[in-house]
Order: sequence, then C-alpha cells, then structure tokens
Amino acid sequence: MFQFTVTAKNNRARTGIFSTPHGDLVTPVFAPVGTQATVKTLTPEHLKSINASLVLSNTYHLYLRPGDELVRDMGGLHKFMQWPNPMLTDSGGFQVFSLAKTRKIDNDGVTFKSHIDGSTHRFTPEKSIAIQENLGADIIMAFDECSDPNDTAYSKIAMDRTHRWAERSVNAKVRADQALFGIVQGGVNPDLRAESAEFIASLNTPGIAIGGLSVGETKEEMHTILDVVTPLLPEDRPRYLMGVGTPEDLINGVLRGVDIFDCVLPTRLARHHSAFAPEGRLNMMNATFARDERPIDETCDCYACTTFTRAYIRHLIVAKELLAGSLLSIHNLRALIRLMEEIRSNIKDGTFETKAPILLERWGNNAKRA
Amino acid sequence: MFQFTVTAKNNRARTGIFSTPHGDLVTPVFAPVGTQATVKTLTPEHLKSINASLVLSNTYHLYLRPGDELVRDMGGLHKFMQWPNPMLTDSGGFQVFSLAKTRKIDNDGVTFKSHIDGSTHRFTPEKSIAIQENLGADIIMAFDECSDPNDTAYSKIAMDRTHRWAERSVNAKVRADQALFGIVQGGVNPDLRAESAEFIASLNTPGIAIGGLSVGETKEEMHTILDVVTPLLPEDRPRYLMGVGTPEDLINGVLRGVDIFDCVLPTRLARHHSAFAPEGRLNMMNATFARDERPIDETCDCYACTTFTRAYIRHLIVAKELLAGSLLSIHNLRALIRLMEEIRSNIKDGTFETKAPILLERWGNNAKRA
Repeated sequence: MFQFTVTAKNNRARTGIFSTPHGDLVTPVFAPVGTQATVKTLTPEHLKSINASLVLSNTYHLYLRPGDELVRDMGGLHKFMQWPNPMLTDSGGFQVFSLAKTRKIDNDGVTFKSHIDGSTHRFTPEKSIAIQENLGADIIMAFDECSDPNDTAYSKIAMDRTHRWAERSVNAKVRADQALFGIVQGGVNPDLRAESAEFIASLNTPGIAIGGLSVGETKEEMHTILDVVTPLLPEDRPRYLMGVGTPEDLINGVLRGVDIFDCVLPTRLARHHSAFAPEGRLNMMNATFARDERPIDETCDCYACTTFTRAYIRHLIVAKELLAGSLLSIHNLRALIRLMEEIRSNIKDGTFETKAPILLERWGNNAKRA
Repeated sequence: MFQFTVTAKNNRARTGIFSTPHGDLVTPVFAPVGTQATVKTLTPEHLKSINASLVLSNTYHLYLRPGDELVRDMGGLHKFMQWPNPMLTDSGGFQVFSLAKTRKIDNDGVTFKSHIDGSTHRFTPEKSIAIQENLGADIIMAFDECSDPNDTAYSKIAMDRTHRWAERSVNAKVRADQALFGIVQGGVNPDLRAESAEFIASLNTPGIAIGGLSVGETKEEMHTILDVVTPLLPEDRPRYLMGVGTPEDLINGVLRGVDIFDCVLPTRLARHHSAFAPEGRLNMMNATFARDERPIDETCDCYACTTFTRAYIRHLIVAKELLAGSLLSIHNLRALIRLMEEIRSNIKDGTFETKAPILLERWGNNAKRA
C-alpha cells in the first residue's frame, strides 16, 4: 500500500501511480475540494462523470461540524459522503489560521475560537491526527503552521515548529491504512525552504506536501520555491502542492515535479458565475451571452457543455437559479481534470515539455477574467 | 395528436394516455414545476431518474426573464432547458394576481408591474397565447382570472371574464402542435362551478383545467367542487387540477376523476428541509437524525434514499450545503411520482377504490409536519 511508481518522466515532470486503500491514483492529479464532506452543489455521480479521482475534505470544518467522531461512527468519510475513491484530509492548520475567529499559538499547539459559534477549541499535532484517523481519508496531513510568506523571521519560527509538529504527527499516527504526508514550509525564503524540504524528506513519509504557497506570494516566488524544493525531495514519493490552483499553476507545478494539487478555485468561481474557457475566464452573467447558442467551451466534454447553451446558463444566473452553480462547477472542475489528463498523456508520450508553452498560452489567461 | 385514451377506470378514477408531440403522457400524472425553465436545483438527468414525464414552467416568469422571444429564438422551451418530454405552461394569470406588485384588471386584460423591477406590462388572452406559442410547451392554458374563492359575488364576475377570455384564447391560438386547455373557475360556489364546467366543456378544447383551488378554501370545499365539476366534463379529455398538491390531495383528486396535477410543494418543502415519508413529513434538520443511518424513506427508490443516510443529509442542512436541497427535491418529487405510479397500477388492476383509504392513511399525514 502507498507505493508510488513513476511510470514516465519529462525532465522534472512525471506521471505515476500512487496506490491507496480506495484505488490507484494516477498522477499528476487535481483534487476537487469537498470542504464539508461535499463538493459544493455536486453529487458523487457528478464527480464520477467528470473523472474526478481524489477528493479533499477539511479537517477543521468536519471536526466542528458534524464532528469527527460522528463521521467515524457513520463508517468514515468515504461511506458518509459516498465517495468510493481516494480521499485526502488536510490537518486543519491552515483553516485555524485563516478562518478561526481568534487563535493563540504555542509550541504545543493552537487554541482557537470556532468561526461558527465562537466556542473554544484546541488543536495539537496529536489531536489533528486523531481527528483525521476518525475521518479515515486515504491521505492525511501532518499538523503545520502556515505563516505570512513575506515575514522571514517568523517563517523560521513557524518552520521549526512545523518540523517538531511533523515528528509528533508521525509518532501520533496509529492507523496503518492512511498515508501521512509531512509538509514543507519556510515562506518565500529559499534557504528555509531547502532546510524544510531536507528535514521533511528525512521523516520518510509516504508522500510530501508543500504548504504555504498560493497565500500571497508572487508567481515568480512560487516557481523559485518549487525549483528549490522538489529537487530535494525523494523521487519515489508523491509531492502535493497544497491549495493550488489556477490552470497555469497546474502546468507550472507539473513542470517543476509536482504530482498532486487541490484548490477551491473552480467551484468558488462557479458560484460567482465564472467559467474556465480557452479564450480566458468568462463571466457567464455577461449580456453578450444572452443569445449565445454555443456551449461554455466547445472543446469540453462535460455534462454542462454537451447539454446546455451559454444562453441557458446565463438565464439561470440572472434568474438566481442554483443550477447555474452546479453546471459551472461541473464545467470548471472538468476543465482542470481534463487539463491534467492531457498533461499525463503528454508526459507519457514525452511531449509535455514542448507542449507546456502551448498549454500555458491556451489556459494561462484563465488566471484573470477574459 | 392530443388524443386522450382512457385505458382503465375505477368508478370516477381513470388511467389513460394523452399523446403529445413530445411523447405519450400516462395519467394520472404529477408534474414537477420548473418555474424559470428549471426545476430548482435539479438537472434534466435528475428528473429522468425519478421518472418525471410532464414538467410545468411559468409563462409570467419566462415572459419577464429571459423573455419568451429569446426562448423562441433559442429553439423553444424544450430545447432551451433540455427537457425532451412533455411540457406544460400556465397562462400567467395566476402569477399576475399572486406575484405582480400592482395589477389593474379590465375586461380586455390586466396591466401589472413586474415583481422584479417594477416595470409595467400588460397581459391579454391574445398576449398570453402569443407568449405560450413562443415558449412552445405541448400543453398551454387559456388566460383566466383567479379570484378570492370565498367572494361569491366577485367569483361570478371573474368567472364570466374567464369564459370570455377562454373564447378569445381559443381564437388567438395559431400553432397546431400545442393543446390549449380551457380553465374552469367559479370559486367555491357549486352553481358557478357547474356553469363554468359546462361552458368550458362547450369550447371543445383537448383538455380542461380546474383553476382557483388550493388557494385558501377548505379540503371539503375542494372535494365538493371536484364532485360538481368532473362529472360535467367530457370523458375523453384529460382534466388538470392546477397547483395541487399534497399527497392526500393527489389521492383525493384521482378518486374524483382528475388526471393531471402540478405543485411547487415538493421542491419548496425540500428547500426548507422537509421530506415526505410514510410516517409523516420529516424535518430533516431535526437533531434526532444526527446519527440516523437509515435513508429518508426505506421504501423509496430515489437516488437520495438509495445512496445517503439521514445523518448525512442532516449534516448538509446544518452546514448550509445546497446539495441538501437537491437531494430532498429528488426525494420529494420521486415520492409523489411513485405515488402516482402506484395509483395508476391500482386503477389498472381495479383495486384503487379499495386501496385509496390505505394510501390516504399512509400519505395523508404528509399535509403537515410529523
């Protein structure tokens, strides 16, 4: 279990298979985010129809609601939300720092107030692992501290704490059917990142996550950090770039040796009427689409694109019909999953490095609105 | 086209086939309501999965948004919303009286202000038919006035106007591929209802609707009116009881010779966390369901019931996840469609009249919360 086999490489980009208790994960892979044990507005059948393989859910949210013990008693996360394929949970660390009302961090853990009702809670590495064991995802994360990437002095403190917490996370783990990934931190400082990559690699976890990116740094900084980090990580372990990203981030990440991605962007954009398209991100509420009989993206094979016109989807948005969000979520997720399928195919036939500039030209403009 | 063949009868209850340009409609039938060219939160695939046959959409809403001419130019309502099976549009009359901001009625028509932006519009029988011809549903309605059922003096005025408008609707109709139904009005006054039934029947439309019920009268009044009206209607035309209703209303309606029903109740209840169940209507947000591993209804074959636990659905509701509304809509619609399937089967084998009390006992308590 948790063997990672690289089946083809193009320079640093690679495609491979990561075996999990809920099936093989073919990488590189983009994971839709099911924050509260559901990818917003979609059924598991929708996710299967777009060829989703890995689904992420959030430890912080599920711990607060409905509670990790309830999920455990209902048979675990896979059974609870009826997702039969691989799942991943984060450690809760990022949400404690980004969502909780107040937080007080010490070397042992974090005390915080719930963003839902203000109640007080405490996460430690041991607590995060216990929650994630109750949830039962195939891939779980060490508890980490995600700091402001531009505060180098504090990044060092947070990184050292993250390393201690990673060791404690490894020691706290009991279940054998879950792969615990350590998380590389260190802000935008290349030296700290190198130190962190070497330390986390030394823990010999079955996979390694790269945290603390896509949190305010520039694209160039992200690329620099990836260029420092991935060469220091073992070849035979999958690398997970947390919370990333846009189509261009996926292409650039794979070019730099990343295997797993997740991001709320496609579903969040969908709920705000934005659609990924080759010509750039489309605001589907735009009046120019009122009588547009084309699908969102003529090259797309998703249910929304093979069934409905832009005119209909625009009508749903203007009429405030929730189906619009579902259809755009299906499309946006499928766009990223299809991009990953194309990238895997290109790596397999040895053309990814030459085709990457074309992919970047086609999808790069989706970072902003068309 | 628009032949109605009664295939079996149990006293006044009947099952039959109404042929339309988009396929045969097996009656008695319950039509989900797709107010704005979508049954809220559901895809056409969901509707097919629950064996929906007839879908209703609202002339008033579609006229205002996105506009009936736009729908026509996009190929008509079936193509626009991708519903390939029979469709029905109402005349817009009911919404003008229930939703529009202000209205001024005269013998020629109604001038009203849009509930969306306050803009002024005018519906006449000719305008309503023109809009419905643009929309292109298989079954369309004569323009009518729905009045306070308990105001007998006014009910007479509104009924007479409805009769004149029915004649004008018949005369205004151009398209041959749509079945125009006249509408019986007359409030809760049996004499007016009898007069209206005889008048509307005399127009020889391919089907006849019964309007102005389920708008504040008692159940007994509704039954009395149905007992007066349906015996006066031709046997070889389908009868459509507009805007009704609850499971018990469907059973009582079929017993009195009704063939077609529609109501927003199942989808509206779904968005308010209520589920039809044999033990009575369930508030799925109730804490007693937090760890309930049963489906909503163990006897139900819908996607929600064959896939998810009450515990999961309750979690979605508490976490304000929109998927809850979709799953409950699927279930509530399937519950009524399944009830109609059972009723049709009972009529066919001649047992409906004896089984109706059992069905009423099983489903009657869904008129209110359990």
